[in-house]
Amino acid sequence: MNVSDSSLPRLVIIGGGFGGIQLARSLRNQACQVVLIDKRNYHTFQPLLYQVASAGLEPDSIAYPIRKVFRNQKNFVFRNAGVQHIDPVQQKVVTDAGELSYDHVIIATGSTTNFFGMEKVSRYSRSMKSIPEALDLRSLMLEHFEDSLLTHDLHERDALMNFVIVGGGPTGVELAGALAELKTHVLPKDYPDLDVRRMNIHILEGSDRLLPTMSKEASTASYKFLTGMGVNIWLGTRVSDYDGHTVSNDSGKVLLAKTLIWAAGVKGNTIGGLDPMVKSRGNRILTDAYNRVKGHSNVFAIGDVAMMPSEAYPDGHPMVAQVAIQQGKQLAKNFKAEWQGKAWTAFGYRDKGSMATIGRNKAVADLPRFRFQGFFAWFVWMFIHLISLIGFRNKVITLFNWAWSYIHYDKGVRLIIRPSKKRKKDPDEMAAVSPSGTP
Amino acid sequence: MNVSDSSLPRLVIIGGGFGGIQLARSLRNQACQVVLIDKRNYHTFQPLLYQVASAGLEPDSIAYPIRKVFRNQKNFVFRNAGVQHIDPVQQKVVTDAGELSYDHVIIATGSTTNFFGMEKVSRYSRSMKSIPEALDLRSLMLEHFEDSLLTHDLHERDALMNFVIVGGGPTGVELAGALAELKTHVLPKDYPDLDVRRMNIHILEGSDRLLPTMSKEASTASYKFLTGMGVNIWLGTRVSDYDGHTVSNDSGKVLLAKTLIWAAGVKGNTIGGLDPMVKSRGNRILTDAYNRVKGHSNVFAIGDVAMMPSEAYPDGHPMVAQVAIQQGKQLAKNFKAEWQGKAWTAFGYRDKGSMATIGRNKAVADLPRFRFQGFFAWFVWMFIHLISLIGFRNKVITLFNWAWSYIHYDKGVRLIIRPSKKRKKDPDEMAAVSPSGTP
Repeated sequence: MNVSDSSLPRLVIIGGGFGGIQLARSLRNQACQVVLIDKRNYHTFQPLLYQVASAGLEPDSIAYPIRKVFRNQKNFVFRNAGVQHIDPVQQKVVTDAGELSYDHVIIATGSTTNFFGMEKVSRYSRSMKSIPEALDLRSLMLEHFEDSLLTHDLHERDALMNFVIVGGGPTGVELAGALAELKTHVLPKDYPDLDVRRMNIHILEGSDRLLPTMSKEASTASYKFLTGMGVNIWLGTRVSDYDGHTVSNDSGKVLLAKTLIWAAGVKGNTIGGLDPMVKSRGNRILTDAYNRVKGHSNVFAIGDVAMMPSEAYPDGHPMVAQVAIQQGKQLAKNFKAEWQGKAWTAFGYRDKGSMATIGRNKAVADLPRFRFQGFFAWFVWMFIHLISLIGFRNKVITLFNWAWSYIHYDKGVRLIIRPSKKRKKDPDEMAAVSPSGTP
Repeated sequence: MNVSDSSLPRLVIIGGGFGGIQLARSLRNQACQVVLIDKRNYHTFQPLLYQVASAGLEPDSIAYPIRKVFRNQKNFVFRNAGVQHIDPVQQKVVTDAGELSYDHVIIATGSTTNFFGMEKVSRYSRSMKSIPEALDLRSLMLEHFEDSLLTHDLHERDALMNFVIVGGGPTGVELAGALAELKTHVLPKDYPDLDVRRMNIHILEGSDRLLPTMSKEASTASYKFLTGMGVNIWLGTRVSDYDGHTVSNDSGKVLLAKTLIWAAGVKGNTIGGLDPMVKSRGNRILTDAYNRVKGHSNVFAIGDVAMMPSEAYPDGHPMVAQVAIQQGKQLAKNFKAEWQGKAWTAFGYRDKGSMATIGRNKAVADLPRFRFQGFFAWFVWMFIHLISLIGFRNKVITLFNWAWSYIHYDKGVRLIIRPSKKRKKDPDEMAAVSPSGTP
């Protein structure tokens, strides 16, 4: 790979998510060369992906070109390539566009959808971990509405209008809320000749409450909000199989649905070349308290892909943006300390709390000192997400879209945009063309 | 196809472009059932497609869901399906979702890219007639920049950084201007480690001037503007072949380019089932002065696809939005006249003039009474395009994006969004998956 040689130490960061971006930013003005490699040319603000999938925002509001983030950072180089594996002996990263040597390599590859080995579920269901997947889900859901007007078969129509979300975590809850608002406020006006009441939104959650990682209050409030919005919630229910039409589950209830959204788990998105011993629970890479990969001196892992057991988090930190950001910051501080001949500091996670939004005026928040639900939580949620977006332009366009939707009970971008000219009818053909659900 | 029966006459409109939308709108409050069929669920504002391709706007600014246009129109039905052919004897439209009977059918299928039978050009070049095509072109151009940083081969790099536009009409001129601005204002900041001066933009035009359908003043001014912005213009030059790498042309100059954008012609996008005698020049459907297809009593064609020879336009009207809109309006008036027992009125085109924008403060305008170029033309161009966009939200977001770009010399949406996870390297595989054909 073509990167100018430099006498300075070269740090290669793999992945432009929250962790990788933060680390590279924190290393500006340092005497090192920072190379960031990503197969995409943009950073994705994942917490708002569900709004792209539910026709509330366009991708440009939540995606930001990586080159633009680093425009004024002189020691930064971006390369748009997919990483195949690393070679710790020769200190090289092997990509589909050639090799690149490193002095330090930081794996910040995040997480990927975990189907827990269920091949058919992975094949026929949708996930929502990237912008292409979110766009694909948006098109699919709108297509199912259009198709339900074209069929005479009532069972088929029900299956087209049933939306099953597996997983009652923040992603599942937020998407269910957004779909319920589409059903109430948007679709009846768009489809006057369709009985939109027949549309059913289901959440299937394996544990005994929604938002199991949050407080009891948050679980209770989100349950109340969602049932009030007409969402069917099935707690203690696990999906065992899905053939693209019937959702098999352990509750005994038969669910027919052409759309199954899998939000039930993620696993580390590791790369090859590491000692197999470092692979830990959830496919994450075992590190010490300095994000150094076990058994390697100059290989690091941060964010979702890193498993750093600690006293407070014996099973590793939660796979959320805040951990990635804080680890990126801390690792940059440690590199600086090393170059100044100082000692490294162990990582300590400062939990800033968690939030989930369900709909207009409805959110839940567990902050370190306060727990609250309803309008104020919704307002705080919007404010925090808005200021977290990169770039003033993205903030303005997102704020405008939110304000517009709020005032008009509308969602702006109900566009079915498909790459190929022909709409695919055969599920296998579809899986081959689009990223969604491909195992 | 599933459309409720009605005792009122059923008008089926095929295509939701400028003509189809206008006709359906003009028939509101009439005692008829209006069914619009389109394979896409949105109307595309084609004059701004080049801004989507050149990273200035996202699709949602120039696309508008068809259902939303007609939300309050009670006699309107939309069906999202592809039309295969019509059956004038049985008075049926045959779609990929079943058949639909009609009392009157209106073909408003617009135009499609004309490669004049050059199979290899059609295979390896890009066109820009739809939103998926424009998005694909955007991703391809950005990928070529990224790839030019990954190669050591200088010839390959030049080919990646050469952009050849075939056709010096409004589309070609506007796209060339937008690319020249990307080159000057955006790319040097995004790619500090690339010699952006090596990027070359070429326009190849077969006739002896740019904008051949506009005034001499417009041609001269656009030539001056574009050369001043560094665009290479080759007049009197025709492309004979393209293999994905070498652009064969009759000037003797060898042009290497991985990106060839074909904006050299369109042809009518006809559908099957009509008497072959009605097919006329440019694959357009021959109609009388009332847009009635020759030899049919209740089949009509409007807009680009219609060939209506008249005294003022013996070879048919220009294939522009204004003709489609005015024909849609006129045909609606004629239907109303018929239902009131009045006589039909022949169509007369009122040419409102034409405009093209080249870059900041640079446009050319031929209005019926005035011709002007430069800042004022640019301002008028922006104003007219802004008010022509459907929906207040689209107007606001487009205005904001334009103002932002103008102040910051920036383009917001430099995102490479590809449907598949893996970037395809094999040309045939790529052509099969995405409309882009990297050779």
